[in-house]
Amino acid sequence: MVTTLSLHPDRLFPTDETERTIARRLFSHVEDLPIVSPHGHTDPAWFSQNDAFSDPASLLIAPDHYLFRMLYSQGVPLEALGVPARDGTPVETDPRKIWRTFAEHYYLFRGAPARMWMDWVLAAVFDVTEQLNADSADRIFERISACLCEDAFRPRALFDRFNIELLATTEGPLDELEHHKAIRESGWQGRVITAYRPDPVIDPDFEGFAENIARLGEITGEDTQSWLGYLAAHRKRRAFFKSMGATSTDHGHPTARTENLSQAEASALYKKVLGGDVEADDAERFRAHMLTEMARMSLDDGLVMQIHPGSFRNHSAALYARFGRDKGADIPMRTDYVHALKPLLDEVGCEPDFTLILFTLDETAYSRELAPLAGVYPALRLGPPWWFHDSPEGMRRFREQAMETAGFYNTVGFNDDTRAFLSIPARHDVARRMDCVCLSRLVADHRLPEDEAAEIAVDLAYNLAKKAYKL
Amino acid sequence: MVTTLSLHPDRLFPTDETERTIARRLFSHVEDLPIVSPHGHTDPAWFSQNDAFSDPASLLIAPDHYLFRMLYSQGVPLEALGVPARDGTPVETDPRKIWRTFAEHYYLFRGAPARMWMDWVLAAVFDVTEQLNADSADRIFERISACLCEDAFRPRALFDRFNIELLATTEGPLDELEHHKAIRESGWQGRVITAYRPDPVIDPDFEGFAENIARLGEITGEDTQSWLGYLAAHRKRRAFFKSMGATSTDHGHPTARTENLSQAEASALYKKVLGGDVEADDAERFRAHMLTEMARMSLDDGLVMQIHPGSFRNHSAALYARFGRDKGADIPMRTDYVHALKPLLDEVGCEPDFTLILFTLDETAYSRELAPLAGVYPALRLGPPWWFHDSPEGMRRFREQAMETAGFYNTVGFNDDTRAFLSIPARHDVARRMDCVCLSRLVADHRLPEDEAAEIAVDLAYNLAKKAYKL
Amino acid sequence: MVTTLSLHPDRLFPTDETERTIARRLFSHVEDLPIVSPHGHTDPAWFSQNDAFSDPASLLIAPDHYLFRMLYSQGVPLEALGVPARDGTPVETDPRKIWRTFAEHYYLFRGAPARMWMDWVLAAVFDVTEQLNADSADRIFERISACLCEDAFRPRALFDRFNIELLATTEGPLDELEHHKAIRESGWQGRVITAYRPDPVIDPDFEGFAENIARLGEITGEDTQSWLGYLAAHRKRRAFFKSMGATSTDHGHPTARTENLSQAEASALYKKVLGGDVEADDAERFRAHMLTEMARMSLDDGLVMQIHPGSFRNHSAALYARFGRDKGADIPMRTDYVHALKPLLDEVGCEPDFTLILFTLDETAYSRELAPLAGVYPALRLGPPWWFHDSPEGMRRFREQAMETAGFYNTVGFNDDTRAFLSIPARHDVARRMDCVCLSRLVADHRLPEDEAAEIAVDLAYNLAKKAYKL
Repeated sequence: MVTTLSLHPDRLFPTDETERTIARRLFSHVEDLPIVSPHGHTDPAWFSQNDAFSDPASLLIAPDHYLFRMLYSQGVPLEALGVPARDGTPVETDPRKIWRTFAEHYYLFRGAPARMWMDWVLAAVFDVTEQLNADSADRIFERISACLCEDAFRPRALFDRFNIELLATTEGPLDELEHHKAIRESGWQGRVITAYRPDPVIDPDFEGFAENIARLGEITGEDTQSWLGYLAAHRKRRAFFKSMGATSTDHGHPTARTENLSQAEASALYKKVLGGDVEADDAERFRAHMLTEMARMSLDDGLVMQIHPGSFRNHSAALYARFGRDKGADIPMRTDYVHALKPLLDEVGCEPDFTLILFTLDETAYSRELAPLAGVYPALRLGPPWWFHDSPEGMRRFREQAMETAGFYNTVGFNDDTRAFLSIPARHDVARRMDCVCLSRLVADHRLPEDEAAEIAVDLAYNLAKKAYKL
Repeated sequence: MVTTLSLHPDRLFPTDETERTIARRLFSHVEDLPIVSPHGHTDPAWFSQNDAFSDPASLLIAPDHYLFRMLYSQGVPLEALGVPARDGTPVETDPRKIWRTFAEHYYLFRGAPARMWMDWVLAAVFDVTEQLNADSADRIFERISACLCEDAFRPRALFDRFNIELLATTEGPLDELEHHKAIRESGWQGRVITAYRPDPVIDPDFEGFAENIARLGEITGEDTQSWLGYLAAHRKRRAFFKSMGATSTDHGHPTARTENLSQAEASALYKKVLGGDVEADDAERFRAHMLTEMARMSLDDGLVMQIHPGSFRNHSAALYARFGRDKGADIPMRTDYVHALKPLLDEVGCEPDFTLILFTLDETAYSRELAPLAGVYPALRLGPPWWFHDSPEGMRRFREQAMETAGFYNTVGFNDDTRAFLSIPARHDVARRMDCVCLSRLVADHRLPEDEAAEIAVDLAYNLAKKAYKL
Repeated sequence: MVTTLSLHPDRLFPTDETERTIARRLFSHVEDLPIVSPHGHTDPAWFSQNDAFSDPASLLIAPDHYLFRMLYSQGVPLEALGVPARDGTPVETDPRKIWRTFAEHYYLFRGAPARMWMDWVLAAVFDVTEQLNADSADRIFERISACLCEDAFRPRALFDRFNIELLATTEGPLDELEHHKAIRESGWQGRVITAYRPDPVIDPDFEGFAENIARLGEITGEDTQSWLGYLAAHRKRRAFFKSMGATSTDHGHPTARTENLSQAEASALYKKVLGGDVEADDAERFRAHMLTEMARMSLDDGLVMQIHPGSFRNHSAALYARFGRDKGADIPMRTDYVHALKPLLDEVGCEPDFTLILFTLDETAYSRELAPLAGVYPALRLGPPWWFHDSPEGMRRFREQAMETAGFYNTVGFNDDTRAFLSIPARHDVARRMDCVCLSRLVADHRLPEDEAAEIAVDLAYNLAKKAYKL
């Protein structure tokens, strides 16, 4: 059966006529605003080299853990989806076969945001007009493949077509940012900036930590075997990243714990974690203290700080052994912010010139901890719903639970946070729509005049991200 | 005042005309589907003996802790409701008086699902046409009493009238399943199967644990004083239960903790808990390890595994002393799944041939832990909202919080999980309606084409339960 | 731009015409009912002295941490808002300047309940007809200032105009209740009662605990250095408070922990905490045990008991150092009730003549712990959504998560819990509206007949508070 694929102009809007009409009007103010993407994980090489994407499967499926985790959960081996195994297990290499397997299981995404994003990519980017399923798989594969041969589907062309005003990528301190340099020197006008993600040299549990520290020393010319040299090396890399456009740092620790140790304690602890002779809590304490050090440096150099805690990485030992990191087996954990952040907040939380953006995978923190914290500390702002919660219902819960205590102006607009370049406009579209849905209800039940709601809609879609991330 | 009781055909449906119309259409696909009840607690003796139920109070009130806990919370003594006391306290025995007390307090259930279920039983089973209250109590008592004398109201007749395709009960390993045998030999076509619930011989804190283990040895002819004999005894009883129709096991541990001990450790621990000379954590560790053993056996014999953790049983010492277990004083607790399940999942979580169905009383786990886990592990599925959350709002929250990450196809349809036989159709009716309500919104805001929603509605009402429980 | 301020008669009501019509009808039954305010923090001196309020800023802004915390979170120094510093830092004293600063930042409250309350105060109390912003700030300041000079805006006149039937304040055991005496002797008919809040003499971490205990001895003539004398002193003060109208006690401990120590243990612990030579857990254990003692006394003297746990007080060290307590930097924490309350509940939880009203700042407890507990223990009732959750969305979540398990009749109506006297009617108005919204949905989807919903609406707005608090 051929079933039509089309993007309804009222998608996600309320069914009620009064609310829908308001939502439409609000959306008309934001629909065509440029995309500001201050946090994400696209590959800068795409924009420096501007090569054509190779095929539908390796572009759309293999890198997207939102997609392959769902198929895996229903018994499809990752090998069948072309996810590279690091233990030598052979995996499917025929993109057409991978695409077919995906299409046959596309019904699994009913009700999931990945379905909305993919439908948008198919319809809006590739002009596909039928639903993806086993029957249509080959035709749609051909269509996308044909498109990918055209210049209009190269990275820079899509960047421009997507009306992206700014796109931030994320790199580690050991990265020389060659692609960012190349982009700047290329004469292309697209604004692609980096962000400083120092986990590989801050987290003692990170693979190759000691080597990373040594390499950091080589790159910076600092003695990273000493605590002061280590801090100086961070400062140098932050300055270098800033010179390449970075306006933010990002920290993906398991928890939100912070510490504010004395310099003597910190120095001793650094020696210990470097030596590798650590006790149970040492790595966690070191990460915790380093958040406070990073906050202090932010107060100096102005980089906005982001923390993304609460993920139990690589939960499945078997998946990790065969396929490595970032294969969809990261699971959220309960996360405390109230006690965890206190040491850092006592140090810099009342500084209006410092900004710390908080993310969570534990939605119970919205109304209980995050909104009350952001609603009083000048340094704190709330990031948008993250990862599993970057979804229509996740956004609804975020606004309903954070808005009344933190307001709209302690939030920072939307992050797409994605590796899936083609889905960026779809994700911003969902966020803008859901914000208009939230606002339309406040207008309809007379909590907010519509002129104020329209102003908020624009702030949420555009201004707040620029302000919070200093863009 | 006589007020009319009637079951509105649009009950629970959205008020909005567009959404209601969609919900009605979706519901028309599922309204008359047979009931598949893969998990519950009805008494198999009802169906083997097919005796008439004795009276309205002992049929509808005394066994239903949803009902008497609410009256008790407002100061009505359990004695007045005919709940048998184990300490010799005299309790009310006149069913008419008990019924009157219940009727006088029926207003307490406003807004509670028990009101919907009871109204359905009154209206749909007994053709009662007035609201239950102090004034109508006697008339309704007469009406029900008269019905119960008729053959059409005996258990098997109701089973058939309710269009039940399959009903699972729950029995312990020491049960000889006489009633299940009798049902099979009776020539009656109703399909009533058992499920293996080994808590009495797995939980060292269970009343009479040591005696239970001894009895298990007698029944199976295995030396249950040895670890290997104990495991062998389980295997035999599972095989026996399977021969009596069982397709699943069920485990009601206080927490979701699992362990994967070495056989030497497990054997030593078993000796310790058998001896009764246990330290604080031993019972919990033993239960935890036994979940992994049960999972391994499931991989062998194909029984689907269910875990129902997170209840603080018998919270009130006073109630327990006087009335014993299952008297409405079990209270949910915060429950961790991410760390707790890892040992078991590392052992069998990636096996697509093994199925572990997870339940929770801690709704915060839906979006944070359960949906992310079920959305990646091939072995995991999510059970429906359970116990206190088996309710319209509970179902709404479950779908809204689990759907976007786990989809619909990592869930298993509905369980009524009830002792209250007459309420089974009412509970499935609520579940089917609420699923149609959820789907109608996805259709109305253009997240899902209606033909796909109709397919999902049928899957949720019927197909998924049969598939997940291998029925 | 001058924008009109008006209070829409349908504010907060559903957009859907059917539901809105029902909500309006339900609201018509409760809109004009007198206000019963059984828990709050207004100053009894207002009503004993009946002095005119001095100016808009010191009346509406300086005492209201809901307001100044939001401005502070966006970089406005508390000094600029006239919040008195205890370290000698000079603060703004010109009420007009403070009012302007507030008005310039009033947009921060979009979507927050404080905006609804303030708009109500401006429109309904002071007949202001334009939105508050930088442009209108001075005109509105003039308007309010002019009103405050009139007798009709003195405390007693407003009390009568607000149709307050009863207002409870909160005082510590060392308070001589002079203002309450003066009110009684004044001949004014307004009913203002006190409530017994013994934290200063129960919490060993309270500032000046030892001095407070000594003073308690002087006041009561009991030897408060001994355990028995200390208990006797409590009994005397409770009796005195009761004679001044008190019907309740209130307890603001960090957690909900209770203990039921032997008298020997309790006596020894009391000595220890009095001596100040305490170990980590001693203060917490003492508070915990004292809840059980207070519960026992309540069983004797009939005072209703309230617990308000779960706030991390004075989270910001810097704010506390400069400005002291209650400056908006109290942050909710995760709170356990299931284990914490068991010792107390085992002692008195099954007594129908004892009432313990539970509040929470941790919304995850509603469906998991609080509703299941209140739905079985005769002594327990649920307080309304508290503090950060005293908001339209907070109320919606409370009803949706508690109603199905605890029903409506294990809740106690609304508390405004406020220092902001002028906002009391606005807060009750929001609560009554949101209850009607909740009920209108139950009627519209046929879960509840409208006549029953109307009865519930009146119970929630008026009867339940009087009954629960024995007013």
